[in-house]
Amino acid sequence: MALVVTKFGGTSVGSTERIMAVARRLVARKEAGDRVVAVVSAMGDVTDELVSMAREISEAPPEREMDMLLATGEQVTIALLAMAIEALGHEAISFTGPQVGIVTDSGHTKAKILEVRADRRVRSALDEGRIVIVAGFQGVTEDGHITTLGRGGSDTTAVAVAAGIGADLCEIYTDVDGVYTADPRVVPSARKIDAVSYDEMLELAATGARVLQLRSVEFARNHGVVIHCRSSFNDREGTIVREADETMEQAIISGVSHDTSEAKVTIRDVPDRPGVAASVFGMLADANVNVDMIIQNVSESGTTDISFTTPVEDLVRARRATAEVVAELGARSWNVDESVAKVSLVGAGMKTHPGVAAQMFRALADAGVNLDMISTSSIRISCVIAAEDVERAVRALHSSFGLDSDEIHAEVSPACGEGA
Amino acid sequence: MALVVTKFGGTSVGSTERIMAVARRLVARKEAGDRVVAVVSAMGDVTDELVSMAREISEAPPEREMDMLLATGEQVTIALLAMAIEALGHEAISFTGPQVGIVTDSGHTKAKILEVRADRRVRSALDEGRIVIVAGFQGVTEDGHITTLGRGGSDTTAVAVAAGIGADLCEIYTDVDGVYTADPRVVPSARKIDAVSYDEMLELAATGARVLQLRSVEFARNHGVVIHCRSSFNDREGTIVREADETMEQAIISGVSHDTSEAKVTIRDVPDRPGVAASVFGMLADANVNVDMIIQNVSESGTTDISFTTPVEDLVRARRATAEVVAELGARSWNVDESVAKVSLVGAGMKTHPGVAAQMFRALADAGVNLDMISTSSIRISCVIAAEDVERAVRALHSSFGLDSDEIHAEVSPACGEGA
Repeated sequence: MALVVTKFGGTSVGSTERIMAVARRLVARKEAGDRVVAVVSAMGDVTDELVSMAREISEAPPEREMDMLLATGEQVTIALLAMAIEALGHEAISFTGPQVGIVTDSGHTKAKILEVRADRRVRSALDEGRIVIVAGFQGVTEDGHITTLGRGGSDTTAVAVAAGIGADLCEIYTDVDGVYTADPRVVPSARKIDAVSYDEMLELAATGARVLQLRSVEFARNHGVVIHCRSSFNDREGTIVREADETMEQAIISGVSHDTSEAKVTIRDVPDRPGVAASVFGMLADANVNVDMIIQNVSESGTTDISFTTPVEDLVRARRATAEVVAELGARSWNVDESVAKVSLVGAGMKTHPGVAAQMFRALADAGVNLDMISTSSIRISCVIAAEDVERAVRALHSSFGLDSDEIHAEVSPACGEGA
Repeated sequence: MALVVTKFGGTSVGSTERIMAVARRLVARKEAGDRVVAVVSAMGDVTDELVSMAREISEAPPEREMDMLLATGEQVTIALLAMAIEALGHEAISFTGPQVGIVTDSGHTKAKILEVRADRRVRSALDEGRIVIVAGFQGVTEDGHITTLGRGGSDTTAVAVAAGIGADLCEIYTDVDGVYTADPRVVPSARKIDAVSYDEMLELAATGARVLQLRSVEFARNHGVVIHCRSSFNDREGTIVREADETMEQAIISGVSHDTSEAKVTIRDVPDRPGVAASVFGMLADANVNVDMIIQNVSESGTTDISFTTPVEDLVRARRATAEVVAELGARSWNVDESVAKVSLVGAGMKTHPGVAAQMFRALADAGVNLDMISTSSIRISCVIAAEDVERAVRALHSSFGLDSDEIHAEVSPACGEGA
């Protein structure tokens, strides 16, 4: 008898029919002997509809009130799902984020979970034989204000509840079968990964794999929660994310990820003196610009070029801040290249297998892909390349590192996870 | 500088445009120097839409989960209204029923308010110069479960919040100009009543005047909250409901109300022995049938006839219970008459002016209206008549007691209050 937290995203609960299907799945689980907690998102497009009502009223609605508004989306789902379970003859009870004691900071619309307090409430409902339904994506501050957790919030709720009640497993149901060695839309021979370590999953999520949200994986690692990421449309085993140990398959390379959501900014002929990089990235940080990769060329003439990548969504702020930087430091010029992409190779085996980088650069060269920037961690190598080369690069790396499976996916579902 | 609680129903906040209009009204009030708390219902048809989603899932959804579902309706409105006020450059803050400490019993879908606890939270937001928005219709049990208050719930929330914070006035905005001497759809010469006592308003509300909900008036009387019932579509003064005192206009008759939502049940030839009425109405009470008026004929032959009226919505249960009663007591037969109506005359002056009943019966006789049943309180006389006679009866009484105004309403809005 396992204690399981299962999370269903907006697509899985997108209609009353789908909510009934989720209810049947939960009831089957309970009848098989498990104790079940479900965490759910808002139905399909409900969040978008609420946002557009808010925009009719205000261009910049106060964030506290946005959270008050958006939190209703998940509350509708939990009530309907509890009703569906009761209609199947089983007992259920729904709780909002505040009711279940998801305490967050006061960063409205992107709050961070501080602790899960009401695990006693969940446990006592489970002891009464109920299936417990918890609203994802939402929490409450110490002062009693309703917050939402922002992108990936429901996954994080599920992991946090699992940690709070000491669940054996946190299942994240999504619209793909699990984590793949590459995006199956790009590489039809990509294989589903059976198990992956937290560290590898973090690198994959941070470099473009969208099945699991980075912050939920971080939370899982910090609290030792085992995640099972699987499809809500079939019963196949998905991907287990957990602490690496000797039983885990020791692949040198776990997967190839890619990301086309960043742009590259280059500042030319920056005076090459101590503290100049600190100035540049200090000003960008002050302007709330996220910076991913950074390279600075070797100086020969007393000036240097600095390039960095930043999410396209930060680009307006990045342009403004860069123009200021250039003026203040007396650099020659700057430009933005939006047609770049990042391709990454992730694998814990890299640490103990020298030559992975050389093989990667050789495979890309053979495929005629030019490297623009390179960055590495102990278990990841990322290269910025031209956007038009990205699919070719992913396929070349996938093949070069022996990740191709024999089975080709006739039809693959999109490799993006569900919202919230 | 007054401390005012104002309540807007579902029609008044039925669209984002209307929410903006309510925001402008609240801001004008604040700029005039008042401290303002607004209590609002769910937007227009939102509650109906939520109910129909629930019905898609379950014919008899659990009431706790219905409350979880329905409470989202008001939460959407409070967030949007707070945004609208902030868009006008004023500070606002929204609170759900649970956040503002509306503590209720656990009678889900029809909970009763036990106390309003978080008046400190409302007061401190007012002290910060904010307009405070509170979700009507909802509360929370001692155990932290979300409840809804049922029909008339938002009016009751407004009165309860007004009592809790010691407001000078509770304004209930509705879709009519106030309380009238009769339904203006039936009597075009009906006059708006400027002021009416709690007791008279209770009698009017209980006998068919639908502007204010009975329970909100009861709550107001018990806590001495002065209600101003007025239109959300104009700035005219409406009707003040408060404790009777010598400054209040001493009309003998305040108004004529009518109600066509009841049916009459007659049981014939019931054995006339002690305890028979107790048996009849005990069995009806056990079957959860609300009984309004009761008459029992004088017995001559050892048997008697018993008639009672009951809301049409209780009629299925009433038929079932009556059939049992008839079988158990050995009565001869029973029948139901759904084409009845009740017309009532309400006025505190009745207590000190003999002859009101006689004048009422004479006026009805002159209008050719036959009386079926009669019941009285110290400030009310009600008669059950044939449904087809009801409009004629109301007009005859209105005219006979000098209530007609000179001004005829060219076009009148329906005399029914807003939902929730």
